[in-house]
Amino acid sequence: MIHPIVSEVHHELQRIVRTDSPSLQRIVDYFLQQRGMGIRPLLVFLCGEIVSAPKQNLLDLAAATELLHMASLVHDDIVDQTAIRRNQPSVHHRFGEGAAVLLGDYFFGKLLKVISSYPPVLAEFSETIESLVAGEFMQIDQQGNSLLSQADYLQRIYAKTARFISSCCKIGCLLVDVPPAAQSLAEYGYNLGMAYQIIDDLQDVIGDPNLIGKPVLQDLSRGIYTLPYLHSLHQTPSEPANRSTVLISPEAILYTKKTAASYISKSIDALTAFKPSETKTQLIHFALQQQQKLDNLQEESCYAPTLH
Amino acid sequence: MIHPIVSEVHHELQRIVRTDSPSLQRIVDYFLQQRGMGIRPLLVFLCGEIVSAPKQNLLDLAAATELLHMASLVHDDIVDQTAIRRNQPSVHHRFGEGAAVLLGDYFFGKLLKVISSYPPVLAEFSETIESLVAGEFMQIDQQGNSLLSQADYLQRIYAKTARFISSCCKIGCLLVDVPPAAQSLAEYGYNLGMAYQIIDDLQDVIGDPNLIGKPVLQDLSRGIYTLPYLHSLHQTPSEPANRSTVLISPEAILYTKKTAASYISKSIDALTAFKPSETKTQLIHFALQQQQKLDNLQEESCYAPTLH
Repeated sequence: MIHPIVSEVHHELQRIVRTDSPSLQRIVDYFLQQRGMGIRPLLVFLCGEIVSAPKQNLLDLAAATELLHMASLVHDDIVDQTAIRRNQPSVHHRFGEGAAVLLGDYFFGKLLKVISSYPPVLAEFSETIESLVAGEFMQIDQQGNSLLSQADYLQRIYAKTARFISSCCKIGCLLVDVPPAAQSLAEYGYNLGMAYQIIDDLQDVIGDPNLIGKPVLQDLSRGIYTLPYLHSLHQTPSEPANRSTVLISPEAILYTKKTAASYISKSIDALTAFKPSETKTQLIHFALQQQQKLDNLQEESCYAPTLH
Repeated sequence: MIHPIVSEVHHELQRIVRTDSPSLQRIVDYFLQQRGMGIRPLLVFLCGEIVSAPKQNLLDLAAATELLHMASLVHDDIVDQTAIRRNQPSVHHRFGEGAAVLLGDYFFGKLLKVISSYPPVLAEFSETIESLVAGEFMQIDQQGNSLLSQADYLQRIYAKTARFISSCCKIGCLLVDVPPAAQSLAEYGYNLGMAYQIIDDLQDVIGDPNLIGKPVLQDLSRGIYTLPYLHSLHQTPSEPANRSTVLISPEAILYTKKTAASYISKSIDALTAFKPSETKTQLIHFALQQQQKLDNLQEESCYAPTLH
C-alpha cells in the first residue's frame, strides 16, 4: 500500500517538473508513470515529523530527495546499461541516451530550484550527489573482480544507497537543529539503507522477476558481485577458474539474509531514544517490512553466471 | 592570451574537483587539460568587479559557472554525439558514455557545494540549467526542419548560450543588490552571448578547423540548421528538394555577420551607464574581440550537406 504522503509528494512532483516543451514533457510523463515506492520521500517525512519539522518544508525536501533519486536512476540506467526498470523499458532504452542524459539534468535543475529556499540542506545534497557518483565509480572499478572483499562490497553499497537513505532520514533535522536526534535518525537510515541494498542484491539472485519488476541475475552476469556471490566464492576458493557458473549455496543465501537482518535490527535499535509515538511506530514498521521482504525470499541454491 | 583571472579560476577548479577515486580523477584530469577560453569565469569576474562585489566571492561564482559549463559540455557532447572537442576526443568518446554521464553529475555535485555558501544565486543557477536543457530539446525538436524560422533559431541560441552568458554577467550583482547595474550587465551578456553563438555557428560553416579545434560542417550535416544556412534556404525557396547540398551564398554569410555585429554593438551600448574604468574598458575590449573574430572569417560561399 502506498502511504498517503507518498501520493502527495508524487502530485507535488508532477507540478514541479511540468514543462513547456512537449517533447520533454512526454519523457517526463513516461518516467513518472513508472512510479517507485517512494521510500525516500516517506523517510524524509516520517523522520522529519518525529523532530517536529514543519510539514510544508518536509514536503519540499521529500520532493527534492525524490528528484535527486529520479536523476540518479535515469543516469545510472545509462551507466549500468539497464534495459528494464519497473517492468518497462528504461528511459534511455525507450527515448535514446541523449534524452535520458537531459532528463536527469532537468531533474537536477528542478532539485536546485526546490532546495534554493533551504540553504541549510545544500551541502548535504551536494555530498549525497558526490557519494552516488563515487558509488557508481566503485562499481565500475570493482566490476569483474571476484577477489573483492566483503568490506569493499559494503563500502560500495554505502556510497550507492545507504548514504542517501541516511541523508533522507536526517535532513528534516537540519531545519530544526536537533543534533542528537539527527545522529540517531542518520543511524536508523544508514542501517536501513544497508539492509535495503543487500535485500535488493539478494533479489537479483533469488527474487521473483514479476515482483521486482526486472529480470534476475542482471548484476552477476555483468560482473557486479554482491554478497551471496562473494560469500559463495570465498567459501569455495578451490573452484576451477574456468567454470562459467558459480554455485550460490543455500548457506551463502542464509549468510546474506543474516547480514541484512542484523542491519534491520540495528536500525530499530537506533530509534530507542525517541519516546513512543505513531510516527515512531511507522518507522519501526518500515524496518519490519524489510524483514518481511527478506523472510519471503527462499533459500534455494542458484547457479550464477560469471564473466567470460 | 589567457586573462590571469582565468588561470586563477582554473587552479581553483583543479582543487575543487580533486577526488579520492583514481578512475574518476583520471577522467577529470583528461577533461581539465582540454582547457577552454574561460569566457564565463572572465565575465563573472569583470562584471562583478564593475559593481564592486568582493573578489573571493567572485572567484567562487566564477568557478561555479565554469563547473556548470563543464557539466553541460560533457553531457551535451553525448546528446549531440560530438566526437572531437578542443582538438581531442570528447570524454564519452574516450571513456564511454557512462563515465561521461557520471563526470557531468560529479561537476553538478561540486557546483552545488560551491554555491551552497551563496543562497541568493541558487535560483539563478537552477534557471540556467533549465534553460540549457530546454535549448538542447529545442535543438532536438528543430533537427532536420528546414522550414525553421529565424525567430526559432534565435530562441534556441538564447536558451543554449545567451541566457547562460547573460547570467554570468549579472550574477555578481545578486551579491551586492544593485538592480539597475544588474539589468545593464544582463543586457550586455545577452547581446554578447547571442553574437558569440552566431559566430560559433558561422565558424561551423566557414571556420578553420585547426583554429576552432573541431571539424567544420558538423552541425549542418546533422540537420542542426543555423543562421547562414536558414538565410540561404529562405533566399532560394525554389531550390529542388532532393538536392543533397545547399549553397550558402556570400550574401547569407554577410547577413549572418551583420546580425552578429549588431548584437556586439548593442552589448557595448548596454555599458553606457557605467563610468569609465579599467574594467569597463576590458568588457568593451572583450566585445570587440568577438568583432575581430567575425572580421577574420572570409565571406566565401560554401556547399553545405543536407540531411538525407
